[in-house]
Amino acid sequence: MEADFEVKEQTTRWSPDSGEVLVKNLYLSIDPYQHNRMKRGAVLPGQVITHNNLSPRIVSYAVGEVVASASPEYAAGDMVAGVLGWEDYTLFKPSPTARMSKVDASASFPLSYHIGVLGTSGMTAYGGLFEVCKPAKGEKVFVSAAAGSIGGLVGQFAKLAGCYVVGCAGTKAKVDLLKDKLGFDDAFNYKEDPDLKSALKRYFPDGIDIYFDNVGGEMLEAALANMNIYGRVAVCGVISEYTGAGRRAVPDMLDVIYKRITIRGIYAWDFMPKRFAEFYGVISDWIRQGKVQVIEDVSDGLENVPAAFVELFTGQNVGKKLVKLA
Amino acid sequence: MEADFEVKEQTTRWSPDSGEVLVKNLYLSIDPYQHNRMKRGAVLPGQVITHNNLSPRIVSYAVGEVVASASPEYAAGDMVAGVLGWEDYTLFKPSPTARMSKVDASASFPLSYHIGVLGTSGMTAYGGLFEVCKPAKGEKVFVSAAAGSIGGLVGQFAKLAGCYVVGCAGTKAKVDLLKDKLGFDDAFNYKEDPDLKSALKRYFPDGIDIYFDNVGGEMLEAALANMNIYGRVAVCGVISEYTGAGRRAVPDMLDVIYKRITIRGIYAWDFMPKRFAEFYGVISDWIRQGKVQVIEDVSDGLENVPAAFVELFTGQNVGKKLVKLA
Repeated sequence: MEADFEVKEQTTRWSPDSGEVLVKNLYLSIDPYQHNRMKRGAVLPGQVITHNNLSPRIVSYAVGEVVASASPEYAAGDMVAGVLGWEDYTLFKPSPTARMSKVDASASFPLSYHIGVLGTSGMTAYGGLFEVCKPAKGEKVFVSAAAGSIGGLVGQFAKLAGCYVVGCAGTKAKVDLLKDKLGFDDAFNYKEDPDLKSALKRYFPDGIDIYFDNVGGEMLEAALANMNIYGRVAVCGVISEYTGAGRRAVPDMLDVIYKRITIRGIYAWDFMPKRFAEFYGVISDWIRQGKVQVIEDVSDGLENVPAAFVELFTGQNVGKKLVKLA
Repeated sequence: MEADFEVKEQTTRWSPDSGEVLVKNLYLSIDPYQHNRMKRGAVLPGQVITHNNLSPRIVSYAVGEVVASASPEYAAGDMVAGVLGWEDYTLFKPSPTARMSKVDASASFPLSYHIGVLGTSGMTAYGGLFEVCKPAKGEKVFVSAAAGSIGGLVGQFAKLAGCYVVGCAGTKAKVDLLKDKLGFDDAFNYKEDPDLKSALKRYFPDGIDIYFDNVGGEMLEAALANMNIYGRVAVCGVISEYTGAGRRAVPDMLDVIYKRITIRGIYAWDFMPKRFAEFYGVISDWIRQGKVQVIEDVSDGLENVPAAFVELFTGQNVGKKLVKLA
């Protein structure tokens, strides 16, 4: 897999009359969804990780510093977060539909937070849980890939909403992290429980009200079988399918009918524009008050982007996977 | 399948101090969901179709006349609709959770309407479409099993909401009915279009916004593949699975995520209590104004319940399947 990537050196051309902003990227977000984009043709062979910017390159969320700007909206020295690229420098052309958010440097959060807990990962967890799943106090919440960048936040947010939360992950260390550090009520290693339906029955004797699905496949089937009436499933990812290792879910639609289950696909950018200010305020407070733990997994240097990306699919990473640039 | 049923003669015991109401059933509702109840053990072997009432018997929606009442809520001569049974007479014990609705005989609708278009079939179509799918004018709506008791109403209701509506069914006569009598914009015979994905692409070049699913299986997969962003799927039935003839759907959850599709199971009784008055008023007006066509398919006599039920699974019935009792 790492051999599928190529890091290229290319020249960036910024000019004062281009309307463009030149951003020196500081942290790159490494997310599983890039794998789909590759499979679906949104990222094509030939799009490369560049030491400087020149399309075609792999677009991704990142945080950086403006080093030159031909746009009145941004000035040199601004810290920004947005859809930039897997590269050292990005040329960004602002438009009504393409904006970077300015990072509040006075908030004294590490810069990296702005592409994780305060960026798309956090927004996906927050919007998906609160807008789609609408947790009520006392409800039972199940989170898969719970030690991942989004799952870990979903579980913590659900605890703050007064829910009973169980997560699953693929190693003992991750399971311990969920229980000991992230405050999950319980957690289990799905690799040691091949009968997922029975496992969920044990962890949820009274059924599941909300399932935040990051994996799809058999886990989705097992969760549906254990859901309560009016259960809600937020479908965030299908990592079991990304690499072809797992098979697709064959959900029992009779369960969906009889239990009037809602299954809904979620996407951070649905919530970002209208709820970002609310989200940012709430999560910032939670972090400051120590109510949300931030777990990051940082690799160094552009050269390590391919290895960092591969880690997402081999169960090695814990929390938000980032690459810190020089 | 007919041989799986047994019609038994049994004695009904009603007494004036029982609190019970004795109802002479006039029309019985024949619905595919009974098949699930049998498969799931909600209807067990030994539960019979009775010429008089004695549990265990097969419970179903029906309309009838009160012939004796030991309840202050009902009087002899009242026409009622509710969850009664596949039998000539039902002993009904009213409680806060078990009620029959009194049928408005002055409305001059045929009695049978109260278990079809003005009963659970109508409520399923109305609640499922308007409460779950929320159609907007101009949206594209696909209905499967569109010549069935619910599908035919969903399509007509969606047309009244200003949508573009295409239905599918399994015979040319049904397809003609959808187009010529029920006002669907288009319709097709799915048996003549083995590549359902391509068929839906042809009928919906701009994609599907709402899919009202009565069949599940490959049709659900094909609909999801053709859905637009923010598409909604109301899951009402999975008739392709009931008899084991079709295979279960293997939906592409990546489609669900990327298109933020909502899939929701529906059930008439979720809408019945709170929206029945609104529903009844709206549908009554639509029928009187000729805006909704009522298609019924009536068999005669309790002895024909088994054959009527089997028709649902062999593609023979059109519209609401009923049995009229003597």
